[in-house]
Amino acid sequence: MTTIAILAAGAMGAGMGLRLAEGGATVLTNLDGRGAGSRARAAEAGMRDVPLDDLAGADMILSIVPPGSAVALAERLAPSLRAGARKPAFVDLNAISPATAERVRAALDGTGCPVVDGCIIGAPPKRAGVSPAVYVSGDPAGLTAPLGRHGLDLKPMDAPFGAASGLKLVYAMCTKGVTALAAGMFLGAERRGAGEALRAELDRSQPELVARFGKAMPDMLPKAYRWVAEMREVAAFLGPDDPAAMMFEGAARIYERLAADAEGSGELGRALLGAAARG
Amino acid sequence: MTTIAILAAGAMGAGMGLRLAEGGATVLTNLDGRGAGSRARAAEAGMRDVPLDDLAGADMILSIVPPGSAVALAERLAPSLRAGARKPAFVDLNAISPATAERVRAALDGTGCPVVDGCIIGAPPKRAGVSPAVYVSGDPAGLTAPLGRHGLDLKPMDAPFGAASGLKLVYAMCTKGVTALAAGMFLGAERRGAGEALRAELDRSQPELVARFGKAMPDMLPKAYRWVAEMREVAAFLGPDDPAAMMFEGAARIYERLAADAEGSGELGRALLGAAARG
Repeated sequence: MTTIAILAAGAMGAGMGLRLAEGGATVLTNLDGRGAGSRARAAEAGMRDVPLDDLAGADMILSIVPPGSAVALAERLAPSLRAGARKPAFVDLNAISPATAERVRAALDGTGCPVVDGCIIGAPPKRAGVSPAVYVSGDPAGLTAPLGRHGLDLKPMDAPFGAASGLKLVYAMCTKGVTALAAGMFLGAERRGAGEALRAELDRSQPELVARFGKAMPDMLPKAYRWVAEMREVAAFLGPDDPAAMMFEGAARIYERLAADAEGSGELGRALLGAAARG
Repeated sequence: MTTIAILAAGAMGAGMGLRLAEGGATVLTNLDGRGAGSRARAAEAGMRDVPLDDLAGADMILSIVPPGSAVALAERLAPSLRAGARKPAFVDLNAISPATAERVRAALDGTGCPVVDGCIIGAPPKRAGVSPAVYVSGDPAGLTAPLGRHGLDLKPMDAPFGAASGLKLVYAMCTKGVTALAAGMFLGAERRGAGEALRAELDRSQPELVARFGKAMPDMLPKAYRWVAEMREVAAFLGPDDPAAMMFEGAARIYERLAADAEGSGELGRALLGAAARG
């Protein structure tokens, strides 16, 4: 029986926990300081809440947190991993740049635990039998193979540590990047009185984009706060000499503004939903 | 018989000339200082090369030039329009911001010619009977109606001067903006060794984008040099306080780099075509 620890029990973490538990794994988590939502999701997914130190006794630890928390989580677990005897594989599945993944690995240096780089592409699994793609790199020994046996759509990459993180970022460029661009377009058009004409022309000449944006805007708004750091990771990955990095710093700022709006009046979010749904 | 002057005889200008000539209009242009390509296109389109001053004798003048040349063209024509008796409507169809359209109007101030704001959305007309959409705003008297009668797909907007330019820019955000983003993605992925994995994941989960990008990249490369100014017009239209403006300054720089590459080794362009066509 494989024991897999997942931090944290967010929508994605709990979704993966549910799938792994259904696939016969024992799934642990730690809910210290987590809110009611995480507790409910963890309970529903069959994840067992154990003390932080006990996670070091699992066969594998999956890190699934907001990109800005990836290094902090590794640092937080390092002492118990160093002290523990089991030495589970630590699998970072976050949307971070290869450079940040290196910092995660450095934070776990001296613990004796192997560190694997990974990423998740797709939505949290909700229906039975469905899993997003889980890419892993820097795992020549196949330490992550149990994830595939327990129901995840595991895609081992024949590539060094960091390649899976890189893939996630370049993929996010054309999904979350395009969504940021569309949000900027709709809000700019509304603000400048061109919203209605834009929508008529898009309906006429870009029906696929209209369909994509109509779905993407309501899906994005509650996650905008998380995508800020992810867009900055993309910019860092590209490096300051790449002009595309500027596009992603801009995307980060769009999500920053939408996240602040969601905390405040929600006015921009409503305008965006109205513009994307119009037709 | 309506006489319509078109400057310049680029791919779009000559395409519009061909359609209007087929539609029964007399089409004039001026080829001073233009290269062999323009001369050939103008001849093929049935456009008559006349001295610059004679353009002021037309019923209407269409300005179809690279965005960076829109104001300069108006300034160049202003003296003969001021001197002329006919006072043709000057229709700016360029991809410029409403603020730049105001500068075009200001350059023609005192000529006595009405100035109409417009834009073209779609590819140059090549087959008989096909026309891109020609939006016009700030034309309450319907001075541009002959364009519709002579074969163009005229779309009068019930909106003030500048609205058509604004529409063109916001529309370009999700067409040329998305293309810039895709170019940045493919080049970044290739440079960081993630090209192959990216393409496999896109084929799996984003087939519509793969189809779009596969068509957009070869279509864009020869035009990248023109899209630099257009992306900067978008940024100016949004204004410095809009975080989306940063995305479009980044897009301008991506096109700048691709335009310089096309003048030089062509290495980036080839990498981009390879990445977009892979599969």
